[in-house]
Amino acid sequence: MSLTDIPSTMRASVLVSQDVIEMQERPVPEPKPGEVLVRVRSVGVCGSDVHYFREGRIGDMVVESPLILGHEVSGVVAAVGEGVSESRIGQRVAIDPQRPCRECRFCKTGNLNLCRQMEFYATPPVDGAFADYVTAPADFVYELPDTLSDNAGALLEPFSVGLWACGKASIEPGSRVLISGAGPIGAMAAYSARAYGATDVIVSDLVESRRERILGFGATRALDPRAQDYSPSSLEADAFIECSGAYAAMLDGLAALRPAGTAVMVGLGPEQMSLPVQDIMTKELLVTGMFRYVNTWPQVIAYAQQPQVDLDAMVTAEYELEDVAAALNADHDPQSMKSVVVVSRAE
Amino acid sequence: MSLTDIPSTMRASVLVSQDVIEMQERPVPEPKPGEVLVRVRSVGVCGSDVHYFREGRIGDMVVESPLILGHEVSGVVAAVGEGVSESRIGQRVAIDPQRPCRECRFCKTGNLNLCRQMEFYATPPVDGAFADYVTAPADFVYELPDTLSDNAGALLEPFSVGLWACGKASIEPGSRVLISGAGPIGAMAAYSARAYGATDVIVSDLVESRRERILGFGATRALDPRAQDYSPSSLEADAFIECSGAYAAMLDGLAALRPAGTAVMVGLGPEQMSLPVQDIMTKELLVTGMFRYVNTWPQVIAYAQQPQVDLDAMVTAEYELEDVAAALNADHDPQSMKSVVVVSRAE
Amino acid sequence: MSLTDIPSTMRASVLVSQDVIEMQERPVPEPKPGEVLVRVRSVGVCGSDVHYFREGRIGDMVVESPLILGHEVSGVVAAVGEGVSESRIGQRVAIDPQRPCRECRFCKTGNLNLCRQMEFYATPPVDGAFADYVTAPADFVYELPDTLSDNAGALLEPFSVGLWACGKASIEPGSRVLISGAGPIGAMAAYSARAYGATDVIVSDLVESRRERILGFGATRALDPRAQDYSPSSLEADAFIECSGAYAAMLDGLAALRPAGTAVMVGLGPEQMSLPVQDIMTKELLVTGMFRYVNTWPQVIAYAQQPQVDLDAMVTAEYELEDVAAALNADHDPQSMKSVVVVSRAE
Amino acid sequence: MSLTDIPSTMRASVLVSQDVIEMQERPVPEPKPGEVLVRVRSVGVCGSDVHYFREGRIGDMVVESPLILGHEVSGVVAAVGEGVSESRIGQRVAIDPQRPCRECRFCKTGNLNLCRQMEFYATPPVDGAFADYVTAPADFVYELPDTLSDNAGALLEPFSVGLWACGKASIEPGSRVLISGAGPIGAMAAYSARAYGATDVIVSDLVESRRERILGFGATRALDPRAQDYSPSSLEADAFIECSGAYAAMLDGLAALRPAGTAVMVGLGPEQMSLPVQDIMTKELLVTGMFRYVNTWPQVIAYAQQPQVDLDAMVTAEYELEDVAAALNADHDPQSMKSVVVVSRAE
Repeated sequence: MSLTDIPSTMRASVLVSQDVIEMQERPVPEPKPGEVLVRVRSVGVCGSDVHYFREGRIGDMVVESPLILGHEVSGVVAAVGEGVSESRIGQRVAIDPQRPCRECRFCKTGNLNLCRQMEFYATPPVDGAFADYVTAPADFVYELPDTLSDNAGALLEPFSVGLWACGKASIEPGSRVLISGAGPIGAMAAYSARAYGATDVIVSDLVESRRERILGFGATRALDPRAQDYSPSSLEADAFIECSGAYAAMLDGLAALRPAGTAVMVGLGPEQMSLPVQDIMTKELLVTGMFRYVNTWPQVIAYAQQPQVDLDAMVTAEYELEDVAAALNADHDPQSMKSVVVVSRAE
Repeated sequence: MSLTDIPSTMRASVLVSQDVIEMQERPVPEPKPGEVLVRVRSVGVCGSDVHYFREGRIGDMVVESPLILGHEVSGVVAAVGEGVSESRIGQRVAIDPQRPCRECRFCKTGNLNLCRQMEFYATPPVDGAFADYVTAPADFVYELPDTLSDNAGALLEPFSVGLWACGKASIEPGSRVLISGAGPIGAMAAYSARAYGATDVIVSDLVESRRERILGFGATRALDPRAQDYSPSSLEADAFIECSGAYAAMLDGLAALRPAGTAVMVGLGPEQMSLPVQDIMTKELLVTGMFRYVNTWPQVIAYAQQPQVDLDAMVTAEYELEDVAAALNADHDPQSMKSVVVVSRAE
Repeated sequence: MSLTDIPSTMRASVLVSQDVIEMQERPVPEPKPGEVLVRVRSVGVCGSDVHYFREGRIGDMVVESPLILGHEVSGVVAAVGEGVSESRIGQRVAIDPQRPCRECRFCKTGNLNLCRQMEFYATPPVDGAFADYVTAPADFVYELPDTLSDNAGALLEPFSVGLWACGKASIEPGSRVLISGAGPIGAMAAYSARAYGATDVIVSDLVESRRERILGFGATRALDPRAQDYSPSSLEADAFIECSGAYAAMLDGLAALRPAGTAVMVGLGPEQMSLPVQDIMTKELLVTGMFRYVNTWPQVIAYAQQPQVDLDAMVTAEYELEDVAAALNADHDPQSMKSVVVVSRAE
Repeated sequence: MSLTDIPSTMRASVLVSQDVIEMQERPVPEPKPGEVLVRVRSVGVCGSDVHYFREGRIGDMVVESPLILGHEVSGVVAAVGEGVSESRIGQRVAIDPQRPCRECRFCKTGNLNLCRQMEFYATPPVDGAFADYVTAPADFVYELPDTLSDNAGALLEPFSVGLWACGKASIEPGSRVLISGAGPIGAMAAYSARAYGATDVIVSDLVESRRERILGFGATRALDPRAQDYSPSSLEADAFIECSGAYAAMLDGLAALRPAGTAVMVGLGPEQMSLPVQDIMTKELLVTGMFRYVNTWPQVIAYAQQPQVDLDAMVTAEYELEDVAAALNADHDPQSMKSVVVVSRAE
């Protein structure tokens, strides 16, 4: 099939009810003005996909009708909507899965990630990318250099999460950064902390094999939180990136911060946490969280090509589009790091 | 007594045990190199003085031996230590009560308030200013213009608290700022929010008379939190300054913030609070606290002279040095706003 | 005429060649999707209009075909394009005259003013507002409160210039700001410096009557630059806003800045200036300029309603649409501050 | 000689008049309270030393009496003043050559480099480090890890210059940075730009051999400015670090910047330069310079240990203390990069 020979229907892997994924035939979407149609190649599996699959919701966001999951996407431009140059057809691309309104105060002032009219792949009721084709605004679809694989292209989304988190943490050359959680987001945060110049990147995790593995993904040290002294002045971290969602990790991280340090919450944990507010006050800590990202693809495309970064090595398993359920359940294996659904491949 | 005719002993009001203040005769301190000796005029009563008086501690800071309270101070330079110009003798002054080490990374990089070797008036074991004389580093003692009274000079310390808090909150011309608590710190925060350009300064308080009064101290609106809708999009505050220490106020304020808004904790409340961390994440809120201030006296001296600011009007009662205990108990009267101990007056 | 009873043609005041303005009949533009049609009320005359009128160009921007000038606009919404709520019809409004692409890196990251595809009223080849009607994107058209007049609504554009300039200058409560040039932009900068908390706002101008007048528009002091000592440590300004375009003023202002101070160039002067780069280095001065603004209308609408601001008082003459040439020449009178072309009035 | 066996006199290489250096016997200085005495090991030769040697001045700073040059220093602590722990004796160290007043507004607010009472090695009338011993405040003397050589320890000073310059330039992961001048400061800026995450570090230089060499010191590309198109949109650099002092390089760099980019002047050139101020305005460029640094030693010590950094490779020649004049003239050889005077060596 040539890229411009686009069928009218396509395969889609659809979450039809809690824990139930089924293959459906769906019409291929048409690119509207300013959009492109992308033939999907690789789609990474994210913890939020797993949440929707198992629990049917993340906080206020509830799956109320059949939903296509998947928002970490690479592919090839197959067609363009009105106003988009045809020269983009055939381009290998990675997709920033956001579709903001472009008109609200947040969109206009550099906070498009906080737009309240945001449409985002695989966030109810907007379908995601476990399908043969998706559309996206042309300016959110970025050319992928030859040096980055299709899988790496998909992983630019979680890399953007790590970079955006670290961008909030005032990391500088020579900084010490503590990261809790040695999963894929912890790894992306570790790479990102290094990108901002951190020379001491400490990742904590309860599982020894994960601690060992993270040393290959940006961490300079790994520690078992049960064996670490987090009392004041013991670690003196400049920044703390919470990537586990665990309450104990959050408390440890706040204790580890030096005065005027920053904590950024990335891992999804409980809705409320009891935090040591007097410590936050007397140390003037900054506590914040992150939600998506703004214009990070140019940055992560550039940085992912650095020799010290290896996104492909993060992929522990590939799945066919028919096996999305298996991909979503891959986290039952503690050796799993990142699963990728390969929807199509270069011929 | 001429200013340079300094006695060898002085009166001091000393906290000797919980709830017990007694007058003692103490040697007049001698100014070391780089210091000045100040004849104390006015000393404001702060909530932290009351905490030490009633509970003997604030968090880790415990009163273990007799302590002179009071850290909001104005006075007149009575003598100078080596290396300080004698021209300062006789100068009316307000004192920044901090004595940082000047050598640590925090002192060198603009965070002297977070210095771990900090000595601070009325923080155990360092004596404060409920006494005839105090010493201070000459560069932390600021000339008071004629247009500011001795009482106003003392109140520059809590004004610094408000200004420093608001300086962390990214307030801009036209901002909407929510402040919880209509006491003296709430008023200082309201004045400060206006100083940063806020045009909508909303102060919440449970007590109607305090709500009415705060409209004369920088607030543009006052509200009863029990009657206010804090659901998302109802208030859309750009910044929230928590000045009550109340948990309910903290939750309300976080709910009232727009995405990317900032919350600054100023009021002393419980050591831990259960906070809505998922909301903080999805709205990318910044949550921080404040601890003292850095080089704010030049700013508050300039701003306190603006016609819209009236620090003297905040003083609801004056006390003699012999009546410090009464001053510390003045907060039992709900009409009390700010008590000042007048140690000496201009002749 | 009712607002919804829109004619097919309208009056327009057109710059047909250098120094020649003529009235023409033009079709009333139709609002595209997302746009509104505005019945123009007041249009302020800006120095850039005068430049195009007299010289036919500003730098690279050259008038090559007939052009309608005018970009400081208030009016009433007369019709709405597809997707815009009809409830806006009849709304009194002020217009942010920018039309950015919304897709480039600058638009996405909070710098829409630097968009290279920007269309801007009265910047060749885009027509401006000296006409009965204009269209604009609905989200760049802001409701005007009853407390602001139509003339004040037009002056929110130059107020935005002043606010954006001061927003780059790290002005804080208590700051000292030096402004060169006591014309309307100098006044807007003075108001804006106050809005950011400056307590010492010094405006320099060669003309005594302008120095006197500026004291009514935000300045706390006015000085004759020929009588001022600008040597180091004489003024110690925290920020300098250059609003005259004069080379001598730029040099004076840089000399007046304290170390780490900021200079913002607003006034249009020569293309090149010889600057004291070694002083910039040894004092670590920040030198920058400003070009339009980002999302300032909500701010200036809020701030223009403060009692200390009086935009109407800045208007020294009103003109009919037929008299645009006279309005453009009003600056020959040294007593002129701001001319406004009143295209229509409330009935 | 044991470290604690300190002689009463020492050798010093003194600039006695323009172009004339002579060896003198000088008393060994005594460390005052809070200071340490350092046995000097390596001292790098800086362009400013050469300026004083050849011209007797840099701007306002004039050599009026015999002066010891040299301010890039490593050594070993030989003795400590009152209040400094004796445990520091014997410690290998690198020295931040600043001695600020610690009392002015600049020292208190994170700008100690701009202190007007600053004393700085080899800046008239303060003697530098081309001598057997120097004193310095203990908190400006940093322990050198075993992995950094004595020469590398001296080069932490120019590395601090590069890092401080890049710290002003808003460099982020993925940034493109243009640096003019492939000398030692250009190399330090290139390393520093990489430290802040830049992935595209372009260094321009007129000399081909220097262009080739710089590729080993952080640059990803080198270009001949005579062969480069600097017209708008050709380079689109995010930041520009001027390290040559050449006027043409400054103009090229400003032209190469994208809108909202930052230019930092580091190289010492003419006192005044004619700059394109209208371009600065319409692109909202930030133009600034740098003067020393603040608390950078912890950062550069951490970063200099990264495998991609090799400070020792920058040293093209070592000289004895008796040969300072030759070291100062080493720049006549175009192959010279960095000369180091080795005052003493580890036994």
